[in-house]
Amino acid sequence: MKIQCQKSQLVEAVSNVQRAVSSKSTLAALEGILLKTTTNGDLKLCGYDLELGITTVIEAQVDEPGEVVLSARLFGDIVRRLPDETVTILVDEKMITQITCGPSEFSIVGIPSSEYPELPSVEGASSIDLTSPILKSMIRQTLFAVADTDAKPVHTGTLFNIENGIIRLVSVDGYRLAMRTEMINLKFEEEDEIRFVVPGKTLSEVIKLLPDQDENVEILVGRRHIIFKIEKYSVISRLLEGEFLDYKAAIPAQFTTEVTVNTRNLINSVERVSLLITDRLKSPVRCIFSEDGEIKISCVTSIGKANDELSAQITGPEVEIGFNNRYLLDALRNADTDEVKVQLTGPVSPMKIVPTQGDSFLFLVLPVRLKQE
Amino acid sequence: MKIQCQKSQLVEAVSNVQRAVSSKSTLAALEGILLKTTTNGDLKLCGYDLELGITTVIEAQVDEPGEVVLSARLFGDIVRRLPDETVTILVDEKMITQITCGPSEFSIVGIPSSEYPELPSVEGASSIDLTSPILKSMIRQTLFAVADTDAKPVHTGTLFNIENGIIRLVSVDGYRLAMRTEMINLKFEEEDEIRFVVPGKTLSEVIKLLPDQDENVEILVGRRHIIFKIEKYSVISRLLEGEFLDYKAAIPAQFTTEVTVNTRNLINSVERVSLLITDRLKSPVRCIFSEDGEIKISCVTSIGKANDELSAQITGPEVEIGFNNRYLLDALRNADTDEVKVQLTGPVSPMKIVPTQGDSFLFLVLPVRLKQE
Repeated sequence: MKIQCQKSQLVEAVSNVQRAVSSKSTLAALEGILLKTTTNGDLKLCGYDLELGITTVIEAQVDEPGEVVLSARLFGDIVRRLPDETVTILVDEKMITQITCGPSEFSIVGIPSSEYPELPSVEGASSIDLTSPILKSMIRQTLFAVADTDAKPVHTGTLFNIENGIIRLVSVDGYRLAMRTEMINLKFEEEDEIRFVVPGKTLSEVIKLLPDQDENVEILVGRRHIIFKIEKYSVISRLLEGEFLDYKAAIPAQFTTEVTVNTRNLINSVERVSLLITDRLKSPVRCIFSEDGEIKISCVTSIGKANDELSAQITGPEVEIGFNNRYLLDALRNADTDEVKVQLTGPVSPMKIVPTQGDSFLFLVLPVRLKQE
Repeated sequence: MKIQCQKSQLVEAVSNVQRAVSSKSTLAALEGILLKTTTNGDLKLCGYDLELGITTVIEAQVDEPGEVVLSARLFGDIVRRLPDETVTILVDEKMITQITCGPSEFSIVGIPSSEYPELPSVEGASSIDLTSPILKSMIRQTLFAVADTDAKPVHTGTLFNIENGIIRLVSVDGYRLAMRTEMINLKFEEEDEIRFVVPGKTLSEVIKLLPDQDENVEILVGRRHIIFKIEKYSVISRLLEGEFLDYKAAIPAQFTTEVTVNTRNLINSVERVSLLITDRLKSPVRCIFSEDGEIKISCVTSIGKANDELSAQITGPEVEIGFNNRYLLDALRNADTDEVKVQLTGPVSPMKIVPTQGDSFLFLVLPVRLKQE
C-alpha cells in the first residue's frame, strides 16, 4: 500500500474514528484503526470496538492499493504532530509502515487487516431524516436519564419511537424519565409505529460528531443494527433488545399543584443547599412549594443545615416533597427554557417538569420519602 | 464573633489561602481556614499545613470580635455559591457558624481556634525587594529542575544566592541544572553573600499569587523561615537546610561545539521523535549536530523508529549525543527566547543551553550514554 493525503484531513478523520476504538482489548487489532484504499482511489478509516463503529473516507492519491491496521493511539499522536501538509504512508509486505512528512519519518509496525473484524451490515433498513441541531438537542435532553447499571440492559439505551408524524426519544433509569418530542416528515409511506433502542454509549459518540450547522443526518435502522450518517462519517451500532418501559403509562396525566419558576434561580438554590451533601453524607433536598408564592428549599446532613428561598407562581395546595439532589439538578439543567412549569400531586407522586409553552421536553423525577423534621 | 464582609473579597481570599490547607490531615483544624477579626476591625484569613502558610486580610464590619476555624473545602464551596454581595458570619459560643447572604442561610460547625497551630515568626530577617514579573519568571525558569525525590532533601528546593548586586536562583536534581540571574538593588548595606533554599512546593504556590503587573514583592528571610509579601497576601514557609550543590563548579566553562537554533523548531522535532517513548519503553533521543548545519534527531524503541531533521548554525566538530527526552524538553520549553545557543563538549559532557544574548538563563542537561547503532 502506498498513498499520499493531506495532514489536516487525516488528523480530523483519525481523531473522530479513534473514538470508537477500545483503549484496552485482548485483540491487538481492536486497539487500532483500519486504513484501506477504496476502488474510487480514496482512503477509508475505521474504528470499531465490536459494539460501535465509526468510519469515514478522505481524499488520497493511491499509488498502490492495500490495507493495514495501525495502533490508534500511536498513529493519532504521530499524525497530529506531523510538520507539513503532505503525508506519505507506505506499507510493505511485512506490514512495516513508513509515515513520511517533510523532514520527519516514522517507521512503525502495522497489523494485517485480516485480523480486523468485519463490521456488521444493516439490512432491510428504514430510513429517517433529521437535521443535525434537532437530533443533537433531542439526544442531549434525554441522554442524562439513561440507566448506568445493567439491572435492565434495555434501559441503558434511549428509546426512539416514531408514530403519527412524531418522533420521541425516551430514557428512563428507575428514578427519573426524560422525554423529548419533535414533528417528523417520514420519507416512507409506512403507517406503522417504529420503535428501537440505541445504546447510550453510541449516542454519546453520535452527539460529538453532530455539527451545529443545519446539516441533514440520515438514520438507517435495521433489525439488529443502526447507522447514523453524519456528513462524511458513518456511525454503526448494535441496537438493544428487550421490553422498554411503557412510558405513556408511566407519565401521570393529572396534577394538583402547578409552579412556574425561573429555571436558573431554582438550579442555583438547589445547588447551594446541595453543598452539604457528599457521597458519604446523602440526604434528600426538601422542597416546600407554598401557597404564598415561595419555594423553600433546605437540606440537613451531619455537616450542617442549609436553607434557601425563591419566589414563583404557584397554584394549587402546598406540597412538601423530597428529592435526590442530583436527579433534580440533572432534569433542571437539561431544560433549555428560561422558565419551567413544575407539576405536582402531593409528596409521593413524581414531579413533572415541562416547558411553559409547547411540549418539546418532559422530565419526571421520583420523590424521596422525607423524615419527619 | 459577628462580622459582615463583601462576597467578592471573601471568595478571592478563601480561594487563595485554601491553597496552603492540607486536604487530608490527622488534625481536623489543619483542613480548615482560620478566620480571625483584627484589632483594626478587619478579617484575617489563614491556611497552614505546618510547612507553608498563606494569610491575608480583608475589609469587614466587625460587630463582635472572635475567631473560628472552618472546613476549607466546605466554606470555600459555600462562599463561591452565595447569591448576593453582603455576607454575614455569626459564630456562637459552641462554634456553630451561621453564614447568611440574601435568602440563603447555612449553619455549619466550626472548630475552636485554640486547636489551630501558631504560625512561625521570622526573626532577624533580611529584606529583599523584587518586582512581581521578574520574580515570577525567575521561579518559573528554575522550578522545573527541582528534585522530586527526597534522596537529597535540600535539592527539593531552589537556591536563592545574592552577591555582588546579583540574584541567582538555582535548581538541580542530579540530571539537570537550571540557573536564572538578575541584577538586584539591595536595601541593606551588607556586603556579604546571602544564601537560602526555598522548598519547591512553596515556590509553586508563590508563583500562583504573583501578579503579572509591575507590583513590588518583599521577601523577608530569617534563619529558619521566609515570608513573601505579595500584595495583600503573606506566604510563610520553612527554609530547607543542608549543603546545596556547588553550582559554580558544576557549570562547565569551556565548550568545543556551539549551535544556534530556533527554539520552537528544536522542541517540535524532539517532541515528534519522543512519540515512540512511553513510560514502559524508555529510550534516549539521539542528536547529531553535524558540521554541515543540520541537527539530526532520532529515536528507536520496540514500537518503531523516528527520524527528524532541522537546520541550525553549527561551529566546531560534529557531536553525537543522547538525552532523556523529558529533561531536554523541560529545558527547551523554559527557554523564553526565540533562539537558543547550545554548547557541547563531546558525547559525555553536559549540554549547556543559554540565550543568544545576555546570561539570564542557563540550563545544563546531562547526556545519556548511547548504544552503538
